[in-house]
Amino acid sequence: MPRKPEILKRHTVARSRLFRADELLLRFSNGEERVYEKLCAGGPGAVLMVPILDDGRVVMIREYAAGIDDYHLALPKGAVDRGEEILDAANRELKEETGYGARDLRFLKRMHLSPAYMEHGINVILARGLYPESLEGDEPEPIEVVPVAFDDLLELVIQDEVCEGRSIAALFYAKAWLEKHG
Amino acid sequence: MPRKPEILKRHTVARSRLFRADELLLRFSNGEERVYEKLCAGGPGAVLMVPILDDGRVVMIREYAAGIDDYHLALPKGAVDRGEEILDAANRELKEETGYGARDLRFLKRMHLSPAYMEHGINVILARGLYPESLEGDEPEPIEVVPVAFDDLLELVIQDEVCEGRSIAALFYAKAWLEKHG
Repeated sequence: MPRKPEILKRHTVARSRLFRADELLLRFSNGEERVYEKLCAGGPGAVLMVPILDDGRVVMIREYAAGIDDYHLALPKGAVDRGEEILDAANRELKEETGYGARDLRFLKRMHLSPAYMEHGINVILARGLYPESLEGDEPEPIEVVPVAFDDLLELVIQDEVCEGRSIAALFYAKAWLEKHG
Repeated sequence: MPRKPEILKRHTVARSRLFRADELLLRFSNGEERVYEKLCAGGPGAVLMVPILDDGRVVMIREYAAGIDDYHLALPKGAVDRGEEILDAANRELKEETGYGARDLRFLKRMHLSPAYMEHGINVILARGLYPESLEGDEPEPIEVVPVAFDDLLELVIQDEVCEGRSIAALFYAKAWLEKHG
């Protein structure tokens, strides 16, 4: 692995309420220089939960996604509040989005959306020991909670409405982890 | 599933060379109104390849990712050129990034990065029948090509340098697909 490129210049080239793009001038260890753009992450990060019911099914949610202008079926997720621990954020978001709390929360893996041009990462959390508990969220309409079979993941994720890469990654990852560690 | 929200207003709030963010005013079917931002995808899309060698290993690449300012290990991917077929783009990018061409290319799945706030999707392509063939790419430094065992994916993706959600999703998806369809 070569030495990391040196960042010669960096400045913000676009900014909105939610997004910020920075332009970077990079010099690679072989002397090549390139201009890159990256999306910068604000805030303390995000969590994505794989909630497993006692009967073995996984709790997914169906909600509207503005990016693709359609409803889709994915794992619950949300932003970590400032000063909040990651597992606390996971349990809070779980209660807001699915109506379940979890007695057993475990960090599995940190994933990135697109490392090439986004800083944004998300922490995948396995949630077990689920029990009914709701917290009020900020959703514009009720979220549909959909428990689904977890044994044939290909059959689940082959559906067009299951389209979020990180949810698909987390489902398979959690299943492989559970098969190994129980 | 409720009716999709109505888009009452839409305008661009930030733009750089690579990125564009639009603000949307949405009215949900229950009458609730919300302002959302989304990142818009330019161009005809992207491809991500799962290249399988005849010995069963999968071809990954190690390269610098500006978003996380580090090297990482992921599947080869790239943008589709205007007017280019998806499978042709997959084979071109494969030749540019790994030094292999593929005799057998098959579309597996369309995935999205973050449906909630990004339009961007990527087409996952299974590539088999690999043979040595290189095309000149536009990389600032040589890409390290890393064939890895495909049998214990958990062992592979548990590594910190394997962190890209869509690559992890594509690896597991392709493995499950191959186990079912051969």
